[in-house]
Amino acid sequence: MTVADSSLAPVVLDRAREATQPALRAAVARLEPPLARVSSYHMGWADTEGRPMPGNGGKALRPALALLSAEAVGAPTGEGVPGAVAVELVHNFSLLHDDLMDGDEERRHRPTAWKAFGPGLAVLAGDGLLVLAEQVLMESSGQGDRAAKLLTDATAALIDGQSQDLSFETRMDVTVEECLAMAGNKTGALLACASAIGAALAGADQVVVDRLYAFGHNLGIAFQAVDDLLGIWGRPEVTGKPAWNDLRQRKKSVPVAAALTSGGSNATALAELYATPGDLTEDQLALAARLVEEAGGRIRTEVEAQRHLELALASLDGLGIPEVTRTDLAALAAFTTTREL
Amino acid sequence: MTVADSSLAPVVLDRAREATQPALRAAVARLEPPLARVSSYHMGWADTEGRPMPGNGGKALRPALALLSAEAVGAPTGEGVPGAVAVELVHNFSLLHDDLMDGDEERRHRPTAWKAFGPGLAVLAGDGLLVLAEQVLMESSGQGDRAAKLLTDATAALIDGQSQDLSFETRMDVTVEECLAMAGNKTGALLACASAIGAALAGADQVVVDRLYAFGHNLGIAFQAVDDLLGIWGRPEVTGKPAWNDLRQRKKSVPVAAALTSGGSNATALAELYATPGDLTEDQLALAARLVEEAGGRIRTEVEAQRHLELALASLDGLGIPEVTRTDLAALAAFTTTREL
Repeated sequence: MTVADSSLAPVVLDRAREATQPALRAAVARLEPPLARVSSYHMGWADTEGRPMPGNGGKALRPALALLSAEAVGAPTGEGVPGAVAVELVHNFSLLHDDLMDGDEERRHRPTAWKAFGPGLAVLAGDGLLVLAEQVLMESSGQGDRAAKLLTDATAALIDGQSQDLSFETRMDVTVEECLAMAGNKTGALLACASAIGAALAGADQVVVDRLYAFGHNLGIAFQAVDDLLGIWGRPEVTGKPAWNDLRQRKKSVPVAAALTSGGSNATALAELYATPGDLTEDQLALAARLVEEAGGRIRTEVEAQRHLELALASLDGLGIPEVTRTDLAALAAFTTTREL
Repeated sequence: MTVADSSLAPVVLDRAREATQPALRAAVARLEPPLARVSSYHMGWADTEGRPMPGNGGKALRPALALLSAEAVGAPTGEGVPGAVAVELVHNFSLLHDDLMDGDEERRHRPTAWKAFGPGLAVLAGDGLLVLAEQVLMESSGQGDRAAKLLTDATAALIDGQSQDLSFETRMDVTVEECLAMAGNKTGALLACASAIGAALAGADQVVVDRLYAFGHNLGIAFQAVDDLLGIWGRPEVTGKPAWNDLRQRKKSVPVAAALTSGGSNATALAELYATPGDLTEDQLALAARLVEEAGGRIRTEVEAQRHLELALASLDGLGIPEVTRTDLAALAAFTTTREL
């Protein structure tokens, strides 16, 4: 197993952001002005009036994977740029629509787009970004059609995952396997696509594209498992969210599903808490967290996170990826899965 | 100019619906169960509980155009089926999202999907249909990638058109040209794509595909102009909507834009009515309709409808389209543009 050093990650992400920004901004500028304005606000480039804001938007994980995926097969970084732009556009499409669906009112300490511009423009801007992503690939030199199919299938999986996640809300019998499959769709599919799209654009062999896809897919599942751990045991000063936030929202995350389906008295007590009407008190939340842990939900999730991270890194073996690129991929993998609790 | 006989249209539409339904239902069945349920309800195939409903959904104009577009270049009807399915999926994506954006609570005498299932599932089902449309084309035999690009560009234009339409709401200086351009995007682009996609799938020359596209594009503008006439002067027993419905909603339709920008005293009086706070009375609506007519808005719209219908039919000249196919296309054109006021 590659030793993963996350300290390189910020440099890799900064480089990807810089390489992607001009093409990303040019793509968004193709939308009708009202949709470009909503999108620029959502990306963190502008305020609600369209005035430029400092900063460069999100952390560019997906663009970084897309660029490294071109480098992984010996292609110039530039060949991955349309892929980097496309996956970032689809990521932001899904954030725009999910924020509305989930009723989230804040993102990065600002009102979400649907709160700032209304649900109609937020939905339409999301639609615009999704279609723009396909256009960017279809118009690109290189194997744009192949990349577009990869992105389309990943987007279909992402939508399936969101649907599965919503359907978990009304169920108490969600299994760990279902949770991991949902994470594989909702989080894994787009990271998988990002990790393979640069190679697809550059015309790499399908077997190499498939292995890079597997890297991103497993990385996505590991990422989600870690996120689920943070959602219960993450310290508010680190996560920026209230303690026990996922329990507060009664999410069926991996640790909760593991606990609820563990069959013991802890599972029964947790199910009763989750079925309690009204907001849970801080004492009830602390109790729920303890029940999840005592039912084995925490350790099970830690094992799954580690297992999928190892699967991800093993996918890179024997592909002849340049050492420097492999080091960068491993750094991103470490960065996304070893965040502080 | 081809003499257009709309009496053939119902047969053409029925045949298209029958040829498309199995593949369309199979495509929708690929979505996650909650999204397939919302979509089946929206298409008119099922009630909110998923129980089958009699009837076969909408009038299948776009599928009919797609199938005829394959026949137009001498290909078997079957080669157009993936195109027919894809344009119908995109049409329903746009209805699902537009109903939410426009706050429409009824469609075909039933609650709209967002009223029946909530905004979240309606948005996600729309997303699902859009991506499914791309998948159907990308997986098809024939020139699926070429067809997918045609559909993607048409969808981008459709989204632009919806954005333009929304932005007209707050403006009083919308010109007839802007209205027609908006209609060319919002209604014309997908009809254009439908009219060309079967030919594209079948590998026709680009010049033929472009001419079929121009047919559908102009047909869409003519269709929208007729719809705008019906929106003011259509009889409620024919349109199923209240009299003067577009005026009630203060739409900037073609006749209204023509009147508002006509510069005379009728324009000023109409602008004052449109600026009146609160609901307009029946007397005010009757006055508004008269002002639009006296300012020349009605005749201008009739001229534009006729002009674009003629442009549409002229696009079919000299392409060597089999006479029977051309007759069917002309019947659909007549059917969509000569509805009773």
